[in-house]
Amino acid sequence: MPGIVVTGIPRAPLDLINEFARFGVATVHEAQGRSGLLGAEITPIQQGVRVAGTAVTATVAPGDNTMIGVAVEQCQEGDILVVAPTSPCDMGYFGDLLATSLMARGVRGLIIAAGVRDIADLRDMGFPVWSRHVSAEGTRKGALGDVNVPISIAGRIVRPGDVVLADDDGVVVVPRLDAAAVARASREREETEERARVRYLAGEIALDVNNMRPMLDTAGIRYVDYDSWKDGGER
Amino acid sequence: MPGIVVTGIPRAPLDLINEFARFGVATVHEAQGRSGLLGAEITPIQQGVRVAGTAVTATVAPGDNTMIGVAVEQCQEGDILVVAPTSPCDMGYFGDLLATSLMARGVRGLIIAAGVRDIADLRDMGFPVWSRHVSAEGTRKGALGDVNVPISIAGRIVRPGDVVLADDDGVVVVPRLDAAAVARASREREETEERARVRYLAGEIALDVNNMRPMLDTAGIRYVDYDSWKDGGER
Amino acid sequence: MPGIVVTGIPRAPLDLINEFARFGVATVHEAQGRSGLLGAEITPIQQGVRVAGTAVTATVAPGDNTMIGVAVEQCQEGDILVVAPTSPCDMGYFGDLLATSLMARGVRGLIIAAGVRDIADLRDMGFPVWSRHVSAEGTRKGALGDVNVPISIAGRIVRPGDVVLADDDGVVVVPRLDAAAVARASREREETEERARVRYLAGEIALDVNNMRPMLDTAGIRYVDYDSWKDGGER
Amino acid sequence: MPGIVVTGIPRAPLDLINEFARFGVATVHEAQGRSGLLGAEITPIQQGVRVAGTAVTATVAPGDNTMIGVAVEQCQEGDILVVAPTSPCDMGYFGDLLATSLMARGVRGLIIAAGVRDIADLRDMGFPVWSRHVSAEGTRKGALGDVNVPISIAGRIVRPGDVVLADDDGVVVVPRLDAAAVARASREREETEERARVRYLAGEIALDVNNMRPMLDTAGIRYVDYDSWKDGGER
Amino acid sequence: MPGIVVTGIPRAPLDLINEFARFGVATVHEAQGRSGLLGAEITPIQQGVRVAGTAVTATVAPGDNTMIGVAVEQCQEGDILVVAPTSPCDMGYFGDLLATSLMARGVRGLIIAAGVRDIADLRDMGFPVWSRHVSAEGTRKGALGDVNVPISIAGRIVRPGDVVLADDDGVVVVPRLDAAAVARASREREETEERARVRYLAGEIALDVNNMRPMLDTAGIRYVDYDSWKDGGER
Amino acid sequence: MPGIVVTGIPRAPLDLINEFARFGVATVHEAQGRSGLLGAEITPIQQGVRVAGTAVTATVAPGDNTMIGVAVEQCQEGDILVVAPTSPCDMGYFGDLLATSLMARGVRGLIIAAGVRDIADLRDMGFPVWSRHVSAEGTRKGALGDVNVPISIAGRIVRPGDVVLADDDGVVVVPRLDAAAVARASREREETEERARVRYLAGEIALDVNNMRPMLDTAGIRYVDYDSWKDGGER
Repeated sequence: MPGIVVTGIPRAPLDLINEFARFGVATVHEAQGRSGLLGAEITPIQQGVRVAGTAVTATVAPGDNTMIGVAVEQCQEGDILVVAPTSPCDMGYFGDLLATSLMARGVRGLIIAAGVRDIADLRDMGFPVWSRHVSAEGTRKGALGDVNVPISIAGRIVRPGDVVLADDDGVVVVPRLDAAAVARASREREETEERARVRYLAGEIALDVNNMRPMLDTAGIRYVDYDSWKDGGER
Repeated sequence: MPGIVVTGIPRAPLDLINEFARFGVATVHEAQGRSGLLGAEITPIQQGVRVAGTAVTATVAPGDNTMIGVAVEQCQEGDILVVAPTSPCDMGYFGDLLATSLMARGVRGLIIAAGVRDIADLRDMGFPVWSRHVSAEGTRKGALGDVNVPISIAGRIVRPGDVVLADDDGVVVVPRLDAAAVARASREREETEERARVRYLAGEIALDVNNMRPMLDTAGIRYVDYDSWKDGGER
Repeated sequence: MPGIVVTGIPRAPLDLINEFARFGVATVHEAQGRSGLLGAEITPIQQGVRVAGTAVTATVAPGDNTMIGVAVEQCQEGDILVVAPTSPCDMGYFGDLLATSLMARGVRGLIIAAGVRDIADLRDMGFPVWSRHVSAEGTRKGALGDVNVPISIAGRIVRPGDVVLADDDGVVVVPRLDAAAVARASREREETEERARVRYLAGEIALDVNNMRPMLDTAGIRYVDYDSWKDGGER
Repeated sequence: MPGIVVTGIPRAPLDLINEFARFGVATVHEAQGRSGLLGAEITPIQQGVRVAGTAVTATVAPGDNTMIGVAVEQCQEGDILVVAPTSPCDMGYFGDLLATSLMARGVRGLIIAAGVRDIADLRDMGFPVWSRHVSAEGTRKGALGDVNVPISIAGRIVRPGDVVLADDDGVVVVPRLDAAAVARASREREETEERARVRYLAGEIALDVNNMRPMLDTAGIRYVDYDSWKDGGER
Repeated sequence: MPGIVVTGIPRAPLDLINEFARFGVATVHEAQGRSGLLGAEITPIQQGVRVAGTAVTATVAPGDNTMIGVAVEQCQEGDILVVAPTSPCDMGYFGDLLATSLMARGVRGLIIAAGVRDIADLRDMGFPVWSRHVSAEGTRKGALGDVNVPISIAGRIVRPGDVVLADDDGVVVVPRLDAAAVARASREREETEERARVRYLAGEIALDVNNMRPMLDTAGIRYVDYDSWKDGGER
Repeated sequence: MPGIVVTGIPRAPLDLINEFARFGVATVHEAQGRSGLLGAEITPIQQGVRVAGTAVTATVAPGDNTMIGVAVEQCQEGDILVVAPTSPCDMGYFGDLLATSLMARGVRGLIIAAGVRDIADLRDMGFPVWSRHVSAEGTRKGALGDVNVPISIAGRIVRPGDVVLADDDGVVVVPRLDAAAVARASREREETEERARVRYLAGEIALDVNNMRPMLDTAGIRYVDYDSWKDGGER
């Protein structure tokens, strides 16, 4: 039976979490071995925002946002609220009042596999949201779900205390105990990319920067001049 | 047979219509008993704009925008043109020239369950549009539809003279004769929300602001400490 | 077998290509007889940008972006890279590093019937992209495709050397040898529209500007006053 | 306020309604001037079934099927129940028990712009359904809607008493007072098609059956032999 | 790092599992408190089949079906293989050869949040599949995932050993330790429904079977005769 | 300008084409190096049918099926008509009359990136169709397109004379000059699969049939007993 609220969840150190906000979602996804990416159906309602935080998780009944209210009480500075309905539902579970309450507690954003509303206000307030839907259709109150249990959202399991990173590319989740290692790997990946960027800016191309020509030759690439190539057919 | 143009439709007073632009679509939808919301497939091409106006309605044949031209003549200051194809069609029925014409008449926006084009120009001109599609594919002329008859659009019936309100959350329609009552209910709802917002800003949470704790207890909510909770299983 | 790279493709003169950027996609699509429009599933990641350029085409294997690297070498000032997977795939084939490389070569944009990532960076860099998807999910390297052969993308064939025009409304492609004629027809269409715009601004409406009233009468349009019209039925 | 149940609606004669079941949805849609077609999002859960009946209409609140129960009482032999949610909702509003009840009253089918469940049972029982969704997620009871008022469904207004025809191609609605004329036009269209079918079976083709060759010549069609045609380019 | 294969998972007794196949997905979903329903994006490739079994779970890399091969070895009589990609991918991971192998082991079906192929063969073989996609596009081999760890699929967490029930309405998952209680509750629900069915067959309607009239009166339902009701307006 | 009809296209020998109908789409797609697969948006209206034939191609204007009539005349025994709109359109371009005409000429099926209607009749007649949409909405006549030029459809270029193979998995196209080689490769692939199937039927599993264990060991697979594995966490 639903209705469990787990209190006192462990969190990664805030300075470790904050470091993630320096990296893009794509970088962290690569750095942890291409895992933890939420499905692309979860999209940002704003542009140009990146946040990292600790996941406080909640499940909600279809058409009922009671447990978001309950989850707020479990949130603290540096958290991101991650919400999934127990059955698919795209109604508007969340608006400017709940955002006001979360901001007052230092919560950094919302990830929800359902709908949100008041999105113009949410943008104006600077409260970032990644959702599956926008809908002015409100929900009711009275049905239980769970808070701070592992939840399934957009094809991933998110556990309370996981590190969540979200930007314009999407959302990635990092297990809490892996966070330090993934941050280190992300840093290294960024440095490698930075060195490559310098070479690209200087006009070098990927075939040389990544030393791809031998592989292409082996694979059988053929260069043909346009005039001597007659047919033009896609095969 | 199509081809009817109803003239001289009744309208709500302009100052009453204008008052609606103070409220969000979500608020008005709640205030009139959670009805009148258009489906979420109708989305704005711009951000941060809210308009209220009187519905001038039109149906158009698939791939033919003749009746938009006819409807323009029935539009006046404070109106919003609401257009639905008689059969589903996502072509670009509307662009910057028709917008120029509507703006010259004081029309405040377009709601269309089909496609529009020249959207960069429409944004630059400040003519707000909510549409189902963006398409550069133009339409032809020659087929009749109706103007100022009740139309079906995105799951709702819109009647000529209804009040239409649209913002980033979507579009809601209010029957003309209910407009005064719905405006009053919206105002009351806003005042209630304003009082709640003050409490949220001060750090109170929904469980207390909405007095939800007794209901949660009755429903059987259980608080468990993370360390004493072993399983972590979503059920 | 894939792996062909056609070099030395012909291009339209750069000043002819540049002229296209004065016209909207909708205008050019009309001017060339309503053809060449890519499907609306290819959407811009940015707003308010219009680019014209010469198509350098590439096919890529699903989940493998090797041939984008190969195609970069075939790109020059004024080009637009046009990429389609050989089988449908929505992964993130392209990010900020490849964009850096293309910008260093004077390439004007990317059209891709697959996913891209680092979109916040791409917007910040001012490198315009029209894609089918946004995904942080990266691709691998090692599989061949072709460069500068005709490709199928979003319902259109694009040939190397074609002129590509893209803006907020979508993407249109003009065969290289037709480019001069289409530019001329676009110019004429724009002038006609400009004359119409002046009349619309002055308050004239489409029924008169386009001389539509006789056609409407023939088709059987009926004007009915609201009060004498009782039924309100959509037919 | 919702909660109105209109009783004693007028119906077309049953033998006129029954005649519609001889025609396909495509035929009737053409015969009444290409109007009245519901959007293609409403699809059959079964194959090879065609039904015609009188529309009994109902609106339901999101996630609440109370009013279907109320509508059953207004249904009689020869009716088709047509249901739309007052706000978009894809839950499973209808299953085998309600179908049992409707069949006991001689109701011929259900059209619903929401979800249904128990679809294997519905197919086995031979109760035909056209829905927007399949979902095992049940609804609650307690919220009012209206019965036998005009409703908006899949882009069309359906009025109580309208004739509804549904088959594998979709759903079309005919205004009650137009039913006799549309049936006659459908019959004529069928006879014309039957004459054409005989000619097609005998090997004639549309260019001759429809006398299209002069129109094609005027439009500028050009026949070119494959060998003398070198380029192959889609334009 | 992926690559974990958990062996020797616990299973519910086979006769308990088999009992679930007597109930529909909708019934079991209700009986366990409206939880455990997979999203409607997972649809059957066949009609009229219902299976219940023990979940053997697997995650697969995008475009790589290696771990399905690994998972086969962990399957036994009465199991259902449940597969999710670690990142969204709709390629054809599974075809007739793997089905042959699973059938030889007594496996009862496949649930996969990705694509399958050879679906005509799968139907002919009688191997039931619920998938997100159909695609002839094959996958590669070489990338690791996990077997028999909790996975996220279509909005739900599935744990190895859970009971899975699938039919034309969709897929529901029951935690192993709850299986006996949920089976009992399903049985009771079926009996209640059976009693109701008898009454519906006899012509009673839901308003009476469910004793809804007092609730409707309280809520304010109004019956109006068609002739005395003039307006016809959807509100 | 459109309006070109290419006559006298070359075709592969009919017995070679017929051989393709022995292979599944998935097999042929693999056998020709994983290319030529049309996107999954093109789906069959029937089940259990596989056809192979020579592509006769046509483009049609949006909402206008004139060129299907023209293309019929270019079709002969063993052909498959392949149709794409010049701009995206989902109307019902094709119904039972055109099917009657094509069947009378020995045409084996239709592939169309748009809508079809009369699908119950088409199934009854045994005329197989793969389409993007089902729609009762008919098209008009009068606009030109091209016949037997290369067309872009569902992400692939199809040239007149190509071999087309379609079944429940989708549609694959084989260049005419490659047909013999691809048929041979398909045969070999089938024989390999047949040998594997015998082993699977005998209870062997893919890890052994495909000799995957050394690769898995190298990649770092770890087998862990359920009881000694405590955490259950998806990573």
